[in-house]
Amino acid sequence: MSTSEPLLIVGSVAFDNVKTPLGEVNEALGGAAVYSSVAASFFTPVNLVGVVGEDFPEEHVGFLAARGIDLTGLQRVAGKTFRWSGYYEYDLNQAHTLDTQLNVFASFSPNLPDSYRDARYVFLANIDPVLQLQVLDQVKSPKLAVCDTMNYWIETRKPELIEVLKRVDIAFMNDAEARQLCGTSSVIKAARQIRELGPRCVVVKKGEHGAMLFTDHSFFSAPSYPLDEVVDPTGAGDSFAGGFMGYLASTNDVSDANLRKAIVCGSTVASFNVEDFSLRRMSKLTLDDISKRYDEFRTICYFEGL
Amino acid sequence: MSTSEPLLIVGSVAFDNVKTPLGEVNEALGGAAVYSSVAASFFTPVNLVGVVGEDFPEEHVGFLAARGIDLTGLQRVAGKTFRWSGYYEYDLNQAHTLDTQLNVFASFSPNLPDSYRDARYVFLANIDPVLQLQVLDQVKSPKLAVCDTMNYWIETRKPELIEVLKRVDIAFMNDAEARQLCGTSSVIKAARQIRELGPRCVVVKKGEHGAMLFTDHSFFSAPSYPLDEVVDPTGAGDSFAGGFMGYLASTNDVSDANLRKAIVCGSTVASFNVEDFSLRRMSKLTLDDISKRYDEFRTICYFEGL
Repeated sequence: MSTSEPLLIVGSVAFDNVKTPLGEVNEALGGAAVYSSVAASFFTPVNLVGVVGEDFPEEHVGFLAARGIDLTGLQRVAGKTFRWSGYYEYDLNQAHTLDTQLNVFASFSPNLPDSYRDARYVFLANIDPVLQLQVLDQVKSPKLAVCDTMNYWIETRKPELIEVLKRVDIAFMNDAEARQLCGTSSVIKAARQIRELGPRCVVVKKGEHGAMLFTDHSFFSAPSYPLDEVVDPTGAGDSFAGGFMGYLASTNDVSDANLRKAIVCGSTVASFNVEDFSLRRMSKLTLDDISKRYDEFRTICYFEGL
Repeated sequence: MSTSEPLLIVGSVAFDNVKTPLGEVNEALGGAAVYSSVAASFFTPVNLVGVVGEDFPEEHVGFLAARGIDLTGLQRVAGKTFRWSGYYEYDLNQAHTLDTQLNVFASFSPNLPDSYRDARYVFLANIDPVLQLQVLDQVKSPKLAVCDTMNYWIETRKPELIEVLKRVDIAFMNDAEARQLCGTSSVIKAARQIRELGPRCVVVKKGEHGAMLFTDHSFFSAPSYPLDEVVDPTGAGDSFAGGFMGYLASTNDVSDANLRKAIVCGSTVASFNVEDFSLRRMSKLTLDDISKRYDEFRTICYFEGL
């Protein structure tokens, strides 16, 4: 029987203003570390490293703590919390940024509490690769280090991002980012090229088209859950990665078969997350809900041999 | 034990000029009825209804006949065969038409040989819905009538297309067409609306993102095969539909479980078809190749329960 391991997550904690065709929210709790931590918390204890300003309310702290997320590594400093404003149109795969205020995030330096440095499972959410490298320098011997990234870092921090890729076991990217990084129209070729840079596995996120996992041994393709409507896609990729990592840490098993299960756990949590704005849906979610939808995924994908 | 049924296919027979990032062909054999008939011919005998001009070479007739495709319904009339010229750029899901010469297709009226009118399995490939209705008027009691269509008919023949949808069992569409027909950004909603128009099932083709099957009872999602390169996407949708219909006719079983297997047969044949220009790859393909790749699809989609 495997033992559940805590999961270290480093990334942004934010206030989001989001407008979609189905509504809007202002100053809502968000950020890659928050979405991924809450998603992972359904499976395993989480140690969160990030930074917030003096304006970060106790209500949010209480919400995260109640989900089993350790906040020893959440720095509170003078100034305002990171803020993002954006909107989505008809194509919900495409976020349009209106405004980014780094605020306290501008001078953020991830400093891991001693108790976090033994982390075996590490998720470097989408932040500056320079910060991701600083985290990797502090963890002693991770069993599974995983990074996410975005087009902005591919454009502005490519050498540092490539350095990160050399040092992680799994890289998350969406299909456009994988193509952009490798300068090819073929996602399949791009995934191979990324694996040649270092990570043993690549996870390509395709939003409504599901996700793909490339490993040494095999290729896995998972669909997305057939939702009538996506209310707010914000945090879909982060909650996907969080569900993935949380499941892996909880089972302490990084075999190919378990990576596949983790992909579906991630897809399941992400499919709930986009059903409402901010963390609203995840705040009401249960492991039983996740388990039931996971089983639905099995039915959705099933077909017999010839 | 079920008995294999012949499959009636009505659609275009064409000469294609195609240019893609990986090469080009001129005056190559093509057309929706040709791609779908050849794809279906791996599974069951095909009766093809279409029209060609005096310029259609015996070489092509011989190729189709050798594949078990009955050409009694292939009209040969004075004039030139239908011609299409187009190209693909970086986004291989998007065909750009340079020129369409209807030629003998302009006055085509599908007239079914008597021996075809008892057809139990009917595939109305992508042609004018007015012609699709003429075919449906001539078949006595089909067990499974299936139509394909395209954006041009949605724009110019919507009432006739809706009439076709009332009379078929399964409608094929790509995701953009489904959205366009129903005026919604949600493919899931669009599929439901299309089913309310008549067909018991809807198959949504998504190119490199796979295909989805919506029935009364369930939702099925299949990935596409992970090809390094798509050499020529022409005929992908037609060979997908042909493989799907051929498998169903060969098994004479339209249960949900068998529809799923048919989707994967279609995806498998289509994945071979796009590996080369025109019918080149399918002309060398064997049922054993198809069977092996079908099994690969099972591996690609497989994951365990939680």
